[in-house]
Amino acid sequence: MKYGVAIFPSKKVQDEANSYRKRYDTHYALVPPHITLKYPFESNDEEIEKTIIPALDEIAKNTKPIDIAVKKVGSFKPVENVIYLKVEPNNDLQNLSDEMHKGALEGEREHAFVPHITIAQNLSDDEFSDVYESLRMSKFDLSDRIDRFQLLYQLDNDSWSVYETFRLKGE
Amino acid sequence: MKYGVAIFPSKKVQDEANSYRKRYDTHYALVPPHITLKYPFESNDEEIEKTIIPALDEIAKNTKPIDIAVKKVGSFKPVENVIYLKVEPNNDLQNLSDEMHKGALEGEREHAFVPHITIAQNLSDDEFSDVYESLRMSKFDLSDRIDRFQLLYQLDNDSWSVYETFRLKGE
Repeated sequence: MKYGVAIFPSKKVQDEANSYRKRYDTHYALVPPHITLKYPFESNDEEIEKTIIPALDEIAKNTKPIDIAVKKVGSFKPVENVIYLKVEPNNDLQNLSDEMHKGALEGEREHAFVPHITIAQNLSDDEFSDVYESLRMSKFDLSDRIDRFQLLYQLDNDSWSVYETFRLKGE
Repeated sequence: MKYGVAIFPSKKVQDEANSYRKRYDTHYALVPPHITLKYPFESNDEEIEKTIIPALDEIAKNTKPIDIAVKKVGSFKPVENVIYLKVEPNNDLQNLSDEMHKGALEGEREHAFVPHITIAQNLSDDEFSDVYESLRMSKFDLSDRIDRFQLLYQLDNDSWSVYETFRLKGE
């Protein structure tokens, strides 16, 4: 069974992201707009309860709420035809994701952590160029206070269901 | 902003429900398969944090995990062309939903509580008859232990995002 860890930002930010995802993101119906902290990994009920959740609880206990800002879009081109709302560089968010790849949660990371909210993916090259050109000069002015993250698992239809919520309780 | 309270059953039950929802449920992409405990209600950040969440915490603290079973489908015809996986009558589940309509959570209930997982809705009368006839004689043999419920809010696109998870912690 596949699990992942993500942040769902506020309704305001999710609604803004969905206004693009609806047209451009093939995963629009599979999961709400999110910032991925830990990419999908294989696990099972027992490991989740005994190891993963206690480790995530500990991280949440020691992490303060994190302020984030979005000012523009970014893209993973040429690796992937993905366009995202770029979360401005943020040490606290970097640390939070780093903690989720240490100790009991250790796992190799395929990429450096680039905090983002995907709004377009699986576009053809032509679509990508059109959409990216029209969005890259846009200014966004979104800010949000992140005070929780969630552990999700994937259903057989590839959609994601939330298993547990972790509140950031650091002082 | 609209909020609601629901149970997401195990992956096994969700996958089974989705195998029907995919074809017959217009809300398939808006929310994973669920048992509604408290129907959508209007609230706001402040009330949610100060009143609703503490009340739900208290309920979760005093409620033991609940075993449920599904053996057949049911329908809300003639009121609505809805077909659902019928959760066998269950006092603990009834009490849990009752608690969510008392005290700080008080609110009028439009219907008696019928625990169910919707698998088909908004069908035409002909579709409804076809699907219901083919499903009503089917035997299901699903069982599950419910150990959590979740508070959700609705986005502008009518999909639902999980805000908080409550573990049933009663002894």
